[in-house]
Amino acid sequence: MEFNGNQTATDVNQTKPIRGAAITCKNELENIDEENLEIVSTQLRQALLSSDKVVGMDWSKRPGISDIACNVAGFRDKLSVDSTNFIVVHGGGSFGHFQASNSGVHKGGLQQPLVKAGFVATRISVTTLNLEIVRALAREGIPSIGMSPFSCGWSTSGGNLPVADLSVVAKTIKSGFVPVLHGDAVLDDVQGCAILSGDVIIRHLAAYMKPDYVVFLTDVLGVYSHPPTEPNAVLLREIGEHSLLAIAVGEDGSWSITKPTLQHMNNQVEITVAAHDTTGGMVTKISEAAMIAKLGIDVYIVKAATSHSVKALSGELRAKIPDDWLGTVIRFSREEVQ
Amino acid sequence: MEFNGNQTATDVNQTKPIRGAAITCKNELENIDEENLEIVSTQLRQALLSSDKVVGMDWSKRPGISDIACNVAGFRDKLSVDSTNFIVVHGGGSFGHFQASNSGVHKGGLQQPLVKAGFVATRISVTTLNLEIVRALAREGIPSIGMSPFSCGWSTSGGNLPVADLSVVAKTIKSGFVPVLHGDAVLDDVQGCAILSGDVIIRHLAAYMKPDYVVFLTDVLGVYSHPPTEPNAVLLREIGEHSLLAIAVGEDGSWSITKPTLQHMNNQVEITVAAHDTTGGMVTKISEAAMIAKLGIDVYIVKAATSHSVKALSGELRAKIPDDWLGTVIRFSREEVQ
Repeated sequence: MEFNGNQTATDVNQTKPIRGAAITCKNELENIDEENLEIVSTQLRQALLSSDKVVGMDWSKRPGISDIACNVAGFRDKLSVDSTNFIVVHGGGSFGHFQASNSGVHKGGLQQPLVKAGFVATRISVTTLNLEIVRALAREGIPSIGMSPFSCGWSTSGGNLPVADLSVVAKTIKSGFVPVLHGDAVLDDVQGCAILSGDVIIRHLAAYMKPDYVVFLTDVLGVYSHPPTEPNAVLLREIGEHSLLAIAVGEDGSWSITKPTLQHMNNQVEITVAAHDTTGGMVTKISEAAMIAKLGIDVYIVKAATSHSVKALSGELRAKIPDDWLGTVIRFSREEVQ
Repeated sequence: MEFNGNQTATDVNQTKPIRGAAITCKNELENIDEENLEIVSTQLRQALLSSDKVVGMDWSKRPGISDIACNVAGFRDKLSVDSTNFIVVHGGGSFGHFQASNSGVHKGGLQQPLVKAGFVATRISVTTLNLEIVRALAREGIPSIGMSPFSCGWSTSGGNLPVADLSVVAKTIKSGFVPVLHGDAVLDDVQGCAILSGDVIIRHLAAYMKPDYVVFLTDVLGVYSHPPTEPNAVLLREIGEHSLLAIAVGEDGSWSITKPTLQHMNNQVEITVAAHDTTGGMVTKISEAAMIAKLGIDVYIVKAATSHSVKALSGELRAKIPDDWLGTVIRFSREEVQ
């Protein structure tokens, strides 16, 4: 289970995500990359809302300013409310990971004082990040609503399998809001507690909501054949049965590359290499992404806050992938899904 | 519906609350009274935990310090985990109220852009306060878990009546945590949205959890016969059928003083006067408190961060109210409840 990303998924009519240490400074504990967060929020607004006029919804007090900024008049001019059909899911980035790994929350054992304390500390850290993301989206006029999996009553069974009633999320979307979910420490009916990762949440939501597409925003351009720092690393542009590279996905989410036909690509490429990430998080990501793709939903893994992520978020890649687009598409033709 | 308090309730074996602008600076927008919050948190720790050794559970980064404080060794020495059976519920104090009242969230109408934005802004503000309270409690070693009514899937029907599945709260307590709930903006099946106040949540929880007692922490000593600033104001020490003052409570929570026999008390005392609060919040509070008392549960309304609140939180008032205790007890003998 990894806490290092930031994702978005959506419902029936649209879907788009985020991930990687895309909006936090991964090597600095609990540090948000404010610039990237602002760019990502702006891109989401452009993908979601019809109007370019930004009417902020974060009316919190700013540091050093005693008044609260609330442009009531700006809303009086606004005649209609945009409908969004969008879900944002984020991981922990540099939030939560330290607290979880130092206490072993992911392994369970709530009767141990350290695990119990780590559970509390992890939730404080990830909800701090969630609040900052909700505020950033609200500043862009996106009607974002923070929702913690723990509070939603979601749990796990044996560490991974989510036990989640998604009806509250569906009701929130239906009411015109954008739910902002996150990887969280949750109760587990076998081991007491566990970490429910953002990637697992996205897969679960995708299966329930059947979105048109899912976008994973990361801090790298996409999935590479080798660690991006190695000279022979190749960006895998498309993963799927009928594309340059084939990936076989088991029912349990395990996967392997079955058709490595990329030019210049070493045939001995290994899964652990192809699925590279500094914390190993990309392994889970590709696995979850492949499970989503098996449902007939296109998945885009793309670098956050770039011209490539704009294209993925807007949904225009569904018609055609432009030649100059950089990122990884994971898709299976619907016929194969059957 | 008012957002200006801070309360605590608890489950089967113990219960204690907080309220009033007890831990926020009421006349300053979104300003926490850090000193009071720390005292209240310490008092809660003393009431809840057996050990005086504080092992903090907020491992967040502090401003200006790059490392995270996590005393892992401190937990290794700790052999057992305290069982708490405690729930904290807080209102908004100087958080949330501005956002809700400026947009009319409490009146519903989510199709209006201003109401929708106000809903988002209100939730940001109240969850900001919730996070700070959770952190303050965690720093005292209380295993606090923030839970937002919205995320819990709670809603209202026609503005007031809560529709709430409390099983997640019960499960959280059973797992050894202290749920920290708050007044929140929620969906409403009649008017679209509403404010679910902390006071209503406490009453609902009390009916479900049957706690031994409920403590409302406020910024005044208790319930007064007149506004506390008036010369003839008298602190009502006890409200109940067999006490100095009798209060009649209807099934709908309406109440009236039926036996104003306090010495020096003007017989023409009016409900609206007796139930004074700068924002009228005390009216809701007494009404909800009386409904709780009708269940046979003692309710203490007491000034936060005082020697009087310590006594209320510890549960020692259940045996005997000391002569020098200042506050208001609301109780009905169990025989009358039938």
